[in-house]
Amino acid sequence: MSNFILNDTLAADTVELTRWPLCRVLLMNDSRYPWIILVPARADMKEIHDLAPADQTLLISELDRASRVLADLFTPNKINVGALGNIVSQLHIHVVARHADDDAWPGPVWGAHTPIPYEQTELKNLTEQLQNALQ
Amino acid sequence: MSNFILNDTLAADTVELTRWPLCRVLLMNDSRYPWIILVPARADMKEIHDLAPADQTLLISELDRASRVLADLFTPNKINVGALGNIVSQLHIHVVARHADDDAWPGPVWGAHTPIPYEQTELKNLTEQLQNALQ
Repeated sequence: MSNFILNDTLAADTVELTRWPLCRVLLMNDSRYPWIILVPARADMKEIHDLAPADQTLLISELDRASRVLADLFTPNKINVGALGNIVSQLHIHVVARHADDDAWPGPVWGAHTPIPYEQTELKNLTEQLQNALQ
Repeated sequence: MSNFILNDTLAADTVELTRWPLCRVLLMNDSRYPWIILVPARADMKEIHDLAPADQTLLISELDRASRVLADLFTPNKINVGALGNIVSQLHIHVVARHADDDAWPGPVWGAHTPIPYEQTELKNLTEQLQNALQ
């Protein structure tokens, strides 16, 4: 955890939901898709293979957990998982609940559209719902 | 391993490089990007969280291994990892070596362009190079 600082762009685009043993669990503020971002709270990580083996095992278990929460709450057609980082290099893993009628289906969400932020009440309610489910 | 059969589209788009304890390791036949696809050889898997915990641990270690091979051989600016499956639902994980001057940078490769297959000699040489590195 020593020198980990969440990247400014990730911080600006998201709301923190909780902190797990490895990752900060963030909600992407884009009302188009239920979209969680996992950020391993380790300094200077860029690639999944930069993580120590024990942290990689934590990552896959936290990814499993986040995916199940999205699957349970939103009954998506598919969960999309992505670690890209071409623009924001700090290691972060997208976990997105996709529906066959969403704006980018069947393409990827990354770079597809400008985010539409949630309304304030909607964001508050969704944050609480997710925080309860993620505990 | 019981009833696992590789999806026809994945088979048509790729060349098998090797088989690891969990995954078939495939080369995507798109000369735009060095691009490996990992397919867990388990029947009826659609999501990462469908895999048993022990298989999830295998998956992250095989992902680590594939990423390192691509990083060593192609010195990319970034490795992109994605499990989408909106079109082909059989669980498969893309591992792509990205360069800042490639055709889709900084966007994702998925859906960006029609693949440009390798020339026959190029494909043979690359397959051998990857097979040596992946062993």
